Amino acid sequence: MRPRWILSLAALVTAAGVIAGAQAPKVVSLIVSGGTVVTVDGARTVIPRGAVAIDGTRIAGVGTAADIARRFAGRATIDATGQVVMPGLINTHTHAPMVLYRGLADDLALMEWLQKYIFPAEAKTVSPAFVRTGTRLAALEMIQSGTTTYADMYYFEEEIAAVTKAAGLRGVLGQTVIQFPVADAKTPAEALARAEAFILKYKADDLIVPAVAPHALYTNDQATLVATRDLAAKHGVPLLIHLAETEDEVKAAREKGGMSPTGYLESFGFWTGARTLAAHGVWVSPEDIVTLVRRGVGLSHNPESNMKLASGTAPVTGYLAAGAALGLGTDGAASNNDLDMFEAMRQASFLAKHASRDPRAVPAATALEMATIGGARALGMEKEIGSLETGKRADLLVVRMNRTRQTPLYDPVSHLVYTTRGDDVDTTIVNGKILMRGRVVRTLDQAAVLAEARKAAAAVRAAVTP
Amino acid sequence: MRPRWILSLAALVTAAGVIAGAQAPKVVSLIVSGGTVVTVDGARTVIPRGAVAIDGTRIAGVGTAADIARRFAGRATIDATGQVVMPGLINTHTHAPMVLYRGLADDLALMEWLQKYIFPAEAKTVSPAFVRTGTRLAALEMIQSGTTTYADMYYFEEEIAAVTKAAGLRGVLGQTVIQFPVADAKTPAEALARAEAFILKYKADDLIVPAVAPHALYTNDQATLVATRDLAAKHGVPLLIHLAETEDEVKAAREKGGMSPTGYLESFGFWTGARTLAAHGVWVSPEDIVTLVRRGVGLSHNPESNMKLASGTAPVTGYLAAGAALGLGTDGAASNNDLDMFEAMRQASFLAKHASRDPRAVPAATALEMATIGGARALGMEKEIGSLETGKRADLLVVRMNRTRQTPLYDPVSHLVYTTRGDDVDTTIVNGKILMRGRVVRTLDQAAVLAEARKAAAAVRAAVTP
Repeated sequence: MRPRWILSLAALVTAAGVIAGAQAPKVVSLIVSGGTVVTVDGARTVIPRGAVAIDGTRIAGVGTAADIARRFAGRATIDATGQVVMPGLINTHTHAPMVLYRGLADDLALMEWLQKYIFPAEAKTVSPAFVRTGTRLAALEMIQSGTTTYADMYYFEEEIAAVTKAAGLRGVLGQTVIQFPVADAKTPAEALARAEAFILKYKADDLIVPAVAPHALYTNDQATLVATRDLAAKHGVPLLIHLAETEDEVKAAREKGGMSPTGYLESFGFWTGARTLAAHGVWVSPEDIVTLVRRGVGLSHNPESNMKLASGTAPVTGYLAAGAALGLGTDGAASNNDLDMFEAMRQASFLAKHASRDPRAVPAATALEMATIGGARALGMEKEIGSLETGKRADLLVVRMNRTRQTPLYDPVSHLVYTTRGDDVDTTIVNGKILMRGRVVRTLDQAAVLAEARKAAAAVRAAVTP
Repeated sequence: MRPRWILSLAALVTAAGVIAGAQAPKVVSLIVSGGTVVTVDGARTVIPRGAVAIDGTRIAGVGTAADIARRFAGRATIDATGQVVMPGLINTHTHAPMVLYRGLADDLALMEWLQKYIFPAEAKTVSPAFVRTGTRLAALEMIQSGTTTYADMYYFEEEIAAVTKAAGLRGVLGQTVIQFPVADAKTPAEALARAEAFILKYKADDLIVPAVAPHALYTNDQATLVATRDLAAKHGVPLLIHLAETEDEVKAAREKGGMSPTGYLESFGFWTGARTLAAHGVWVSPEDIVTLVRRGVGLSHNPESNMKLASGTAPVTGYLAAGAALGLGTDGAASNNDLDMFEAMRQASFLAKHASRDPRAVPAATALEMATIGGARALGMEKEIGSLETGKRADLLVVRMNRTRQTPLYDPVSHLVYTTRGDDVDTTIVNGKILMRGRVVRTLDQAAVLAEARKAAAAVRAAVTP
């Protein structure tokens, strides 16, 4: 029992503060309060009983629950007690519609996998409707597993954009440009025209960043690669490319000019003029890393895909030491086989430790940074997303932390990387909008999306059955 | 529409069969029916609409749902439609109570991790009560993630056995023998006496296989190692040991006799006389593999622990080519950080592909075999568990296959390894008894177990706080 006068005194002091002109709380659209807030700002701040205030599409304040309650009044609130509040995850490399090929064929040599399964399936099934169906399935999976922004490279990218926007996700979406005829373009010129129309349509969008995606150096000639760079530079949009994924690509680059893949692209100025995101970056030398960092190229590390396809080991500790803008990606679900960025974090940490023979490599906090602010830097969006900071876009998650495998809890950052799954995400918020709450997705009809995907899969199965 | 007389004719034929003496269905305790049955027998049988009949503690029949319905009548039934029915997973290496240390410290050099965190925590917290609390938490996690049999090495193993039996799990439980004073024994002689008392208590148990667990060659002298082997041989129980986990262990063995760890143990007959399970087996030569196979030593591969602790790469493809009895393990949750055998399967496949630079290495079916029948072989229990075959113990799972990340479904075996998590297990059955149904564990009070674990964690935190 404490004497009643202390209570009264406290009340008087508070009242006096208000009377003396302490500001009245600002009314904001949403407050997420009571959870352990992991901000992933530079200071690696963890606020045990924290809160995030959201006003419209942006973060209005981050602090202790008490501090936020004093400064803000939310028109809506989410109680995150016992849970973790963190920035949304950024998947820097995928091919969303390829979820429809997941598990179609595994455990094959790359060429057999591509030529017997993926290419025939794509030739016979990729259409605007197929791409919409696949993107809806991918968007559902991403929202359910805590991805709030993703970078994509595929065909009919305008269909992907429409579905992504309707689902409420943020996307950096790259229209593929490739030398040979594909589902949505017979020539590179046609693909470039398609990319430009796509850019013009989505250039000022709040959620969609249109991009140009030359597939790779071995599937495009130099003139086409230069044309993609020029198109991206002309409109100030990102350029997305696969870089140095396999040893075969190293051979292809060497045949083109006696250089590494990175050096070949550097030789004709591909890396200058547009903001570029290079996916994989496995076969790079220390000199290549210097080039990539000097040119401000963002990197997407895809540990699960690299392991499953036996592509090789990206020099992650080398990239980090050089200060590269390094994010994480899942790659397409045909080679992973899911879009779970929590798995990508864990694998990035495990693989770096394994490859460097050092258990201190890529600690949990670094893996978390790669999946959030690192991905934002890789996409050139670090001023808008990637951490919980006032003024940034309100892209955040509430993550459950009460599972048996998460018990006991000594360190939330360790648990996020080493024992948490996408399935533990309770709430997904993008641009201030709640896309999922209590694991119920609000922007997509789950049963309809799954049923539609199963129907599309029947056509895929038929396409690869001899 | 088919003519009514066909229907009538069919009914007549069926009736005639019954009248003519076709056997009446045998009444059994439980039938799991309607799911895709993945038997993991030698023929890699997958039965699309299959069923398993269980009578008491054993499997009475496996076949199509129609076949089982004709042959058996279940006193109880489980409808597994749309789900996968598979053998329970076998975790061949863990230290169950160490779940209480999960996430306590990560990303450290091995010696710093052990000396600053694990050893002080163990010195101050390990007690019979602590071991019971930890084992309850581990058992809850294992049941929830589909492990039905596990091999353990820790202290106060009789407490672990009591909790394991009460939880309904099958355990091969090894009482640790170690040269220096530990929580439950001041000398190796005391540890050996404790091990023998434990063996005598559980020798005839239906669920518990007692075992002797000399920790490693670098923590026991030769006389103690021989004494553990003799004790195991005397009672016909398994011997569990850590083998060639780190490069430091290779140095330790070399100092003892100029040999590899495997060769050193071979030099004084450690591998003969008892059934031995060696955990890790990372640093082994082709000659060592020959020795291990010749001596019938079971191997436990722990890909996640090996990667997180940067221990090295076990020669999995070498073991498989040599026909070794190779199972999978999670290792203790202080170094993983969970007990999810689905993650172990995926990691075993990914790591083997990565290490061998061959995407065909350890395909999904092989990873699944390692986690089931391979583990049974490693434990010398392949006649009792590890596959769904008539006469074996009824240790099986019903696994959900309808998640977004499991959609679409082309191949259930691919999905089990590449997109399924422990959390997807719906039903866990051990020895014919339902331990979990619809994700509700029946043999443990989840809320009480988690609360008790959190309380124990406070003592752990205090123990490592300077």
